[in-house]
Amino acid sequence: MKFRCEKNVLQEGISIVQKAITGKSTLPVLQGIYIKTLGNEIILTGSDIDLSIETKLSAQVIEHGSLVVDSRLFGEIIKKLPNDTIEITTSENNSLEIICQRSVFNLNHMSADDFPNLPQINENMIFSVSQKILKNMIKSTIFAIAQDETRPILTGILFEIKEKKLNLVALDGYRLALKNENVDNDNNLNAVIPGKTLSEVAKILVEEDETVNITFTPNHILFSLGKTKIISRLLEGEFIKYNSIIPEEYKLKITAKRTSLLECIERASLVAKEGNTNLIKFEIEEDNLVITSNSQLGKVREELNIILQGQPLQIAFNSKYLIDVLKIMEEDEIVMQLTSSVSPCIVKNKDNDNCTYLILPVRLLGN
Amino acid sequence: MKFRCEKNVLQEGISIVQKAITGKSTLPVLQGIYIKTLGNEIILTGSDIDLSIETKLSAQVIEHGSLVVDSRLFGEIIKKLPNDTIEITTSENNSLEIICQRSVFNLNHMSADDFPNLPQINENMIFSVSQKILKNMIKSTIFAIAQDETRPILTGILFEIKEKKLNLVALDGYRLALKNENVDNDNNLNAVIPGKTLSEVAKILVEEDETVNITFTPNHILFSLGKTKIISRLLEGEFIKYNSIIPEEYKLKITAKRTSLLECIERASLVAKEGNTNLIKFEIEEDNLVITSNSQLGKVREELNIILQGQPLQIAFNSKYLIDVLKIMEEDEIVMQLTSSVSPCIVKNKDNDNCTYLILPVRLLGN
Repeated sequence: MKFRCEKNVLQEGISIVQKAITGKSTLPVLQGIYIKTLGNEIILTGSDIDLSIETKLSAQVIEHGSLVVDSRLFGEIIKKLPNDTIEITTSENNSLEIICQRSVFNLNHMSADDFPNLPQINENMIFSVSQKILKNMIKSTIFAIAQDETRPILTGILFEIKEKKLNLVALDGYRLALKNENVDNDNNLNAVIPGKTLSEVAKILVEEDETVNITFTPNHILFSLGKTKIISRLLEGEFIKYNSIIPEEYKLKITAKRTSLLECIERASLVAKEGNTNLIKFEIEEDNLVITSNSQLGKVREELNIILQGQPLQIAFNSKYLIDVLKIMEEDEIVMQLTSSVSPCIVKNKDNDNCTYLILPVRLLGN
Repeated sequence: MKFRCEKNVLQEGISIVQKAITGKSTLPVLQGIYIKTLGNEIILTGSDIDLSIETKLSAQVIEHGSLVVDSRLFGEIIKKLPNDTIEITTSENNSLEIICQRSVFNLNHMSADDFPNLPQINENMIFSVSQKILKNMIKSTIFAIAQDETRPILTGILFEIKEKKLNLVALDGYRLALKNENVDNDNNLNAVIPGKTLSEVAKILVEEDETVNITFTPNHILFSLGKTKIISRLLEGEFIKYNSIIPEEYKLKITAKRTSLLECIERASLVAKEGNTNLIKFEIEEDNLVITSNSQLGKVREELNIILQGQPLQIAFNSKYLIDVLKIMEEDEIVMQLTSSVSPCIVKNKDNDNCTYLILPVRLLGN
């Protein structure tokens, strides 16, 4: 194998495929990047079996071939080389030579035969969405996935296409995040994608209108972004019927400035960290919200102007769940829909109905 | 005690004195900030006994008093409050009230009586230096202090005033860093200041021409920077006679571009990390420096144009020591002065004779 390629092009490709390389695998070949020439391009692939990422780069291919090279070392070397053309050549004894200006590296490489084959996916059932929108949808829901593996399906995000809407849903037993966008697609389908995959996908997606094409198979999802393909296995099992969890009715509604409410809750939670309870209390009064918290560290009282429709209520929350939601929302004003001090609270934008957050209150003694 | 003070002023003061609060003390009062009113100012103090920092802030003092409040919690609260006037009042039962707009915090505070007294230092033996210069001198030497406590004196930096020069010296048995500046002072003195102190001092010093006044006592050093005073104990014992270590003569001299040499060494060290030896070899030839390294990861060969005065030489180094030095130096061109493959190597600026770095080579089998 022999090819020449620009340093910055190669470095960018490496940084993309490295997102699939966890370094946790005991299989040495999975700590490597698979490099293969194809026509006037080279293909780089990184994989941890569950998640695989491949990307194509322009190169001047002189002799075709393939190999696997240690991801960390290869990445560090390419990063430190001057911004110029790099020549990469294999020689005998599994040796790889990297030449750039007056730098010459000789590394051992692994055999391409040991690298796992990627699942073959026919890109026939495609639906498209702008990268910027998908990136935002992932960010708006991923914080609510379950962190423990007690119910593995909850460590993923539900991708659901229904009635020309794409819904992303995450929930962990204490809260739920639902984000939706209109899509021009008549299919009805759903699949649960591991949170880890989507967290890496979100890093690769750009904040631009370029589209990402998505293909589902029974066991995998493929994201195609121009020269880069991301393939992840799906989580097995049925996702929770989230629609039945979200209450359709409510008894009172608060409208509040999002950042003001966030700041009050963040301050109130400073004394609530003791013992990790994060417990804060809301006293919802007419036109006024009083947030209090206390612990052995001290106590705090915050007041905020709101608009209340309905009767006053007292309710308590884990502040972390509210902070997560208010930080990720984008509109200036939000609404909270409540029924009682033990019923779920719904948080939405005041105007744009493209997200629904559900948070369970903390039941206090005496409620 | 009762005072009003602007949030940003108080926040800046807290962040300064927190640099002395390590949080490692088992004495709860040393995890606190001592606050005392004085005229129309408040004084904040943080201390871990070895190092104490106090700073004065303008405030509207309504009732004089003093107290100690938990540094982390108090700092977080002030940081999260709105950018407005903050009112702080003590009430009965060691309670402290913090009010800003519609936020009210009540915290417990500790008694000011338990806070250790700072050493009394008469600011009579003053010498002054620009903050920018001192900050730079500390940064230029501190990396060479000993990391282990086998010889405690080497965990500090020697401050030496001699013949109208201020010399800062650090050494750890493998390398030495000496930085000097002309000062207008006829004293001759020396003291060894703990590295930890100087690392915090460097963070507080600004990149400006404002001066810092320095006072020595037999056991302490005082840095006065306008409203802020930093007091540190000195390390006990005699520093190593560094002048006798630095060779005055050499047999060959290399002149090289600093950043090019640094980049070559950084690349060469990528394969040298195996087993943490960081071993790189220099083959110094006429007008050419070849740097090589190898390990079970692979091998590398780098070439660089240099100017050599003297005979060719082969010598080996721990790349980390060279990288530390070349990163901190500022001139475009540096010189290396060498005598043999087992003699110390001196690195200096080509032009400005304000620093001297000594690095011991690694002795190779057969040398």
